[in-house]
Amino acid sequence: MSGKLVVRIAEIEIDLDQLESYRALLAEEIEASVALEPGVLSLNAVSVKDSPNSIRILEVYASQAAYEAHLQTPHFLKYKSATAGMVTSLTLLDVDPIAMHGKP
Amino acid sequence: MSGKLVVRIAEIEIDLDQLESYRALLAEEIEASVALEPGVLSLNAVSVKDSPNSIRILEVYASQAAYEAHLQTPHFLKYKSATAGMVTSLTLLDVDPIAMHGKP
Repeated sequence: MSGKLVVRIAEIEIDLDQLESYRALLAEEIEASVALEPGVLSLNAVSVKDSPNSIRILEVYASQAAYEAHLQTPHFLKYKSATAGMVTSLTLLDVDPIAMHGKP
Repeated sequence: MSGKLVVRIAEIEIDLDQLESYRALLAEEIEASVALEPGVLSLNAVSVKDSPNSIRILEVYASQAAYEAHLQTPHFLKYKSATAGMVTSLTLLDVDPIAMHGKP
């Protein structure tokens, strides 16, 4: 997988009445993406403690091509259509890695 | 390492004139923390593309005790004192994991 890492933070607000459904769909999509796509290096989704319908996702793709391929996968398309009516706000922040370290 | 994961997002603004020094100190601190501390599971630091002095760090600790031990390490204390005059704003967001997956 050649190319430069693509790293992004998604800041998402969810309709509180649909939060549990959204969380389940998101978890399913993340598991499938990392398991099935060589170019999806990591997806880390969290909710803000004081505002549980505020979601943040740190997304790391191996390359721009890997990111674009991800957008065409059945699991991503399912997530996108199933959650369209749950998302009240979506901000995508393009970011550059400074230091990314984790336990092996 | 028992206990519940502690996960946090730090949102940090840096004095633009000191950004390169800050980035080097942060990278050094992150490498040392993950390498030396069993309870520091991952530290992922990025800068916002359109605003490079805006830093975001996703921090994952094995437990509250691991987090508190981290705050007393020589590498963290060095980072904290060396960067005190560089940080113009610091917001700490306590978050709960929804799904955190990465390549092995």
